Amino acid sequence: MTGLLTDLYQLTMAAGYFEAGKSGEIATFELFFRHLPRYRNFVLSAGLEQAVEYLTNLRFTDSEIHYLKSLPQFKRAAPEFFDFLRNLHFTGDLFSIPEGTPIFAGEPILTIRAPLIEAQIAETFLLATVGFQSLIATKAARMVEVAGGRAVVDFGTRRAHSPEAGVLAGRAAYIGGCSGTSNTETGFRYGIPVFGTAAHSWIQAFPTEHEAYQRLQKMLGDATVYLIDTYNTIEGAKLAASLGRPLWGVRLDSGNLVELSREVRKILDNAGLHDVKIMATSDLNEYKILEYAAAGVPIDVFGVGTDLATSTDSPNIGVVYKLVELNGRGTAKFSEDKHTLPGAKQVFRFAGHDTIACSWECLGCGPGEPEARALLRPVLVGGKLVDPLPKIDAARQYAAESIKRLPTATRSLFDTDQQYRVEHSPALMTLYEKVQDENGLLRHRHAD
Amino acid sequence: MTGLLTDLYQLTMAAGYFEAGKSGEIATFELFFRHLPRYRNFVLSAGLEQAVEYLTNLRFTDSEIHYLKSLPQFKRAAPEFFDFLRNLHFTGDLFSIPEGTPIFAGEPILTIRAPLIEAQIAETFLLATVGFQSLIATKAARMVEVAGGRAVVDFGTRRAHSPEAGVLAGRAAYIGGCSGTSNTETGFRYGIPVFGTAAHSWIQAFPTEHEAYQRLQKMLGDATVYLIDTYNTIEGAKLAASLGRPLWGVRLDSGNLVELSREVRKILDNAGLHDVKIMATSDLNEYKILEYAAAGVPIDVFGVGTDLATSTDSPNIGVVYKLVELNGRGTAKFSEDKHTLPGAKQVFRFAGHDTIACSWECLGCGPGEPEARALLRPVLVGGKLVDPLPKIDAARQYAAESIKRLPTATRSLFDTDQQYRVEHSPALMTLYEKVQDENGLLRHRHAD
Repeated sequence: MTGLLTDLYQLTMAAGYFEAGKSGEIATFELFFRHLPRYRNFVLSAGLEQAVEYLTNLRFTDSEIHYLKSLPQFKRAAPEFFDFLRNLHFTGDLFSIPEGTPIFAGEPILTIRAPLIEAQIAETFLLATVGFQSLIATKAARMVEVAGGRAVVDFGTRRAHSPEAGVLAGRAAYIGGCSGTSNTETGFRYGIPVFGTAAHSWIQAFPTEHEAYQRLQKMLGDATVYLIDTYNTIEGAKLAASLGRPLWGVRLDSGNLVELSREVRKILDNAGLHDVKIMATSDLNEYKILEYAAAGVPIDVFGVGTDLATSTDSPNIGVVYKLVELNGRGTAKFSEDKHTLPGAKQVFRFAGHDTIACSWECLGCGPGEPEARALLRPVLVGGKLVDPLPKIDAARQYAAESIKRLPTATRSLFDTDQQYRVEHSPALMTLYEKVQDENGLLRHRHAD
Repeated sequence: MTGLLTDLYQLTMAAGYFEAGKSGEIATFELFFRHLPRYRNFVLSAGLEQAVEYLTNLRFTDSEIHYLKSLPQFKRAAPEFFDFLRNLHFTGDLFSIPEGTPIFAGEPILTIRAPLIEAQIAETFLLATVGFQSLIATKAARMVEVAGGRAVVDFGTRRAHSPEAGVLAGRAAYIGGCSGTSNTETGFRYGIPVFGTAAHSWIQAFPTEHEAYQRLQKMLGDATVYLIDTYNTIEGAKLAASLGRPLWGVRLDSGNLVELSREVRKILDNAGLHDVKIMATSDLNEYKILEYAAAGVPIDVFGVGTDLATSTDSPNIGVVYKLVELNGRGTAKFSEDKHTLPGAKQVFRFAGHDTIACSWECLGCGPGEPEARALLRPVLVGGKLVDPLPKIDAARQYAAESIKRLPTATRSLFDTDQQYRVEHSPALMTLYEKVQDENGLLRHRHAD
């Protein structure tokens, strides 16, 4: 795990902190988003496993350090700084909301409490992996939400933002409720079900469609799925029906899926193949799935590619990572349009709303309000795992149950006026005012 | 380089081809996009280096093969197939349009000619790396186009679709004309200039903004850039001016960048710091840069994050990889809305238009039309590099020159009615009709 996979300024700041004798200071950073992404009423958190993997493997190799020494930005850095980097590993604490939790603006997804330099260097990687996986888990959840019980499978790697993004998209989509992925590496690494049929090139590689189907059936047996649109979907369905069992299903990949799926269903049923599945692919997304489901189409599985792996309608999420505490002192940023709240925080989830509070507060934990739950939990303490992370199937199950508990409006595909209620505790606001006052004094001091 | 980083169906098809005795057949696949991405008049090709790296390192490890054997889709596969996979490496040919070439719908970016199984397995990775990098190179080129000579730097990793996508986005953005990236790993791997300043957390980590600036200046010397908006941009600029040299620049990250940059410029100029640069960041993209440049703002460097690394307004590109020839026979797909043209092709670029032709055609190569160039060139032959790939600086230079030669309308940020003219040679269309006829016969045959 490379230490260089970070923004250069994290490393120049590290050198500066080292020089200023601040490398032992304990910093608390929170990772959150300021606003919900466009067209989203909630975000489903994902990416914790990769965050942990990164933090526990963060290292600098000799050749990486050699590269840094060659940069103009490090020509004044002390040799001791490079020795420090050579020995650096993550010794801090990580608190996190569990993967598969629906979250809202301002809520810390991860909180890092660690020596300043360790916490600073980690920023870039943590933002990129948690932000991206949360984006895709959310997108997947939207598709599953409206699919009417039909399976949704990730087929998006080829259109993902790099092959590795495809691997992680498959993971995140599974947490969001997909039934599996076409990415074999995702299955291998994370134990997620993998699915696959055949491409048009398979059909084209044989002299006749008939031979192509027969060969596939011989090879895949009960797992056989014919892609039936290479030449003509209806003819392809008739050919599939004539070959009979073993057969798991057929896949439609072009044309009017509503009409074609109905005709194909009839062809299969007339051949007694009532249990043979119809899978549909072809530029699908949650909006089209909603229409198909509302029309009651006889499609059993939706295979979704591009729009899932890149979250086309909302392709990024404004995650940030902000210093909220240094050596126990609350700190904040007061830029015109981008202020932050000071102090390490906890998120308490009540039956129908959240409260963001100071970390030491315990809201609703009395006997009167038994439903409040503190969402952030310790994951790493002193750089070591407190407990094994939940298995990915548990995260997926937890996500499904958590989404079910959200208000109907929050689960809508479309923007809602009834935003999920997120409050700030009075103690947190008091701390904010206190830090703001101190900061006013500080600014005055250096302006003198 | 893992062989599993592919869609499962590539591997089940591989097993099927092996079973059918087709593993030695020679297939030609072309990688292209059917339609320009939304809001784009051209795409800048990028990703060839990673395609070559993948093809020359493609392997299956024992544990990967063990995993495949455990899947239901492979329970009928012959043991010899797994031995075959264990020994598999890429032995074919790769032809490619050079990185940094503006390309259009239907033009092959890469052509793979290889034993069927090798070519098939490579599909997913090639699409994901070439599609993504081309998307980002294009986005970068748009920003550079309208920046009026100001530098554009990639700061996008934190919002990229995974950390690795950030590394590759930095590479692609450089080919597209960016001056460098904040991603240190990108600099390390690809020899691209890296840039960095300091974050808000740096300012907050010291008791006063004054001390934070002084420490940075001491550390960075001539490379010093102050982030001046943590508390108040104008006060920050005055503080920077009072500290004087050494100083490379200041960075604005919030508020009205037009007004603030003008005020900050005055403050710096009044202190005699005429050569000190102003860098701006804060959710920038080509549309905002166009406005700023048109207003003649005194901003010297734009640092662009989210919208560059995720190509927000057009976050994917419909790249496909289609079988066009098998054992020398042209093949095509005739699905309703997704047909392909058969046969390996060449793209000839004339002064103001392109012609897609059969690979053996030589258009405009006579003395009468000296400006025609064949864009696809051999890169790998028999799995081996023909020539070293161009250095990335050469690709960046080639991109800049190639974009300059495009018609004005094609270089516009906005959709144009005057699409770049792409023709098909008469010989190619004759081949298409021939294959269509053959296919009609074939379909008739198996419908009997």
